[in-house]
Amino acid sequence: MKIALTGATGFIGRHLVAELVQRGHEITLLVRDPQKLDALRRPGVRTIQFDLYAPANSAAEVGKHDALIHLAWPGLPNYKELFHFEENLPASYRFLKACIEAGVPQVLVTGTCFEYGMRDGCLAENMETLPANSYSLAKDTLRKFLERLREKQPFVLQWIRLFYMYGPGQNSNSLLAQLDHAIDKGDPVFNMSGGEQLRDYLPVEQVASGLARVAEHAECDGITNVCSGVPISVRKLVERRIESRNARIELNFGYYPYPNHEPMAFWGDAHKFEAIISSAP
Amino acid sequence: MKIALTGATGFIGRHLVAELVQRGHEITLLVRDPQKLDALRRPGVRTIQFDLYAPANSAAEVGKHDALIHLAWPGLPNYKELFHFEENLPASYRFLKACIEAGVPQVLVTGTCFEYGMRDGCLAENMETLPANSYSLAKDTLRKFLERLREKQPFVLQWIRLFYMYGPGQNSNSLLAQLDHAIDKGDPVFNMSGGEQLRDYLPVEQVASGLARVAEHAECDGITNVCSGVPISVRKLVERRIESRNARIELNFGYYPYPNHEPMAFWGDAHKFEAIISSAP
Repeated sequence: MKIALTGATGFIGRHLVAELVQRGHEITLLVRDPQKLDALRRPGVRTIQFDLYAPANSAAEVGKHDALIHLAWPGLPNYKELFHFEENLPASYRFLKACIEAGVPQVLVTGTCFEYGMRDGCLAENMETLPANSYSLAKDTLRKFLERLREKQPFVLQWIRLFYMYGPGQNSNSLLAQLDHAIDKGDPVFNMSGGEQLRDYLPVEQVASGLARVAEHAECDGITNVCSGVPISVRKLVERRIESRNARIELNFGYYPYPNHEPMAFWGDAHKFEAIISSAP
Repeated sequence: MKIALTGATGFIGRHLVAELVQRGHEITLLVRDPQKLDALRRPGVRTIQFDLYAPANSAAEVGKHDALIHLAWPGLPNYKELFHFEENLPASYRFLKACIEAGVPQVLVTGTCFEYGMRDGCLAENMETLPANSYSLAKDTLRKFLERLREKQPFVLQWIRLFYMYGPGQNSNSLLAQLDHAIDKGDPVFNMSGGEQLRDYLPVEQVASGLARVAEHAECDGITNVCSGVPISVRKLVERRIESRNARIELNFGYYPYPNHEPMAFWGDAHKFEAIISSAP
């Protein structure tokens, strides 16, 4: 397939580019920073300069592709800041609409498990959304806008709800990155929360291959949780990481309080996602 | 109180201006059409020219008031058109934010019962919203944006969900306006739907006095249904109207199908609204 991609230099994007190339797709990266254009170019990979806030030229290019994967979302995390819906939402909507009007028939956009809001338990795609911060409100609203748009102008809308991820390139403030750093420094103790909270984690490489599979299946329309479907305690996640690194570090549970902006125990319903990744390639 | 008002020339606005003047408020009308400025001016009523899409000057003026009542919403009805969220939503949000930043401590905005979506029964303010068209999505999203904004910058947010209304100045395409027109013409028959659907109707004068009461009560924060709380069939509404006019016209039920974009039977929970209108002035 001919696939256009934004966000190629981000955490997921770097893995997704490798995955798409390996699967034989012809890809075009829409890159904000002109200095990165050359470095990203390679066989099977074109790059074009792209401004989310002035997308006219790049949208015309995207229109020539079979699908657009839109990962770009400036300013993360800062979940509570208003720019998510004041700036990112209208910019992304206008860009996507311009691409669809330019002829791209399929759009994959990454949303977030936080669209489900402050709810515990197994979260399924057909649940009503209850976004409780500006970031997830902006993503949830973008999806709703796109659903209205496609009543006027049909296109395949693949809305991906991402859960937690880890792996190469992760944010240095993330839990496992901080743990790795503490192990590398030889710290005797790692301060953390109580660790009993349940989350849904996937290695970023599995997220990337999952996104590629979804993009290859145009019949996979609507919302899809990209997740493991298996809750794991943060404590167990950390202990596994220490074990896999053959490291010795004491865990100081309860040093940090549980965050009050996240539910205590939630994970994704992965049935739809599993059906896609186990289907014929 | 010093109250600024948009939408003064609309169906509700005309009644609300009269109500606010009668209640002794000092009001400023923000009017789009410069030709209407002089006609609207009278004792207790100032007018200023206003462009929802370039609100800088008018927002500074609004900042000097005790409250803003924002009724303006161009292009109604056309509920399915994208301009509701592509244009009206960001314009209203930017205008309201500018007014709040300019110092107005209280904002009353009219939303719609359609924010509740395709749901039958008694609709209460604490229900999750499920907007099913572009108009109600835009209104619902505006409220969510304002709720996030006030985490950054406190203000009183009075979000009014309007149900059905009738009275002088109503849209000539509305049911009772068409009935009146048929009676005036001396038509022998009035074609209508089955008439069994249940709705919540208020005379527009009661809506206007209700809005004035809410604006006078800054403690009335959050969402308020402005409605009767009493379901009435469309058939009965029409029959009452014919009776009150002492008219004779045959009702041809079932000529039009029931609209598929509205629930069959829904009305508002009016407990909060009733508490406000029965409280001390």
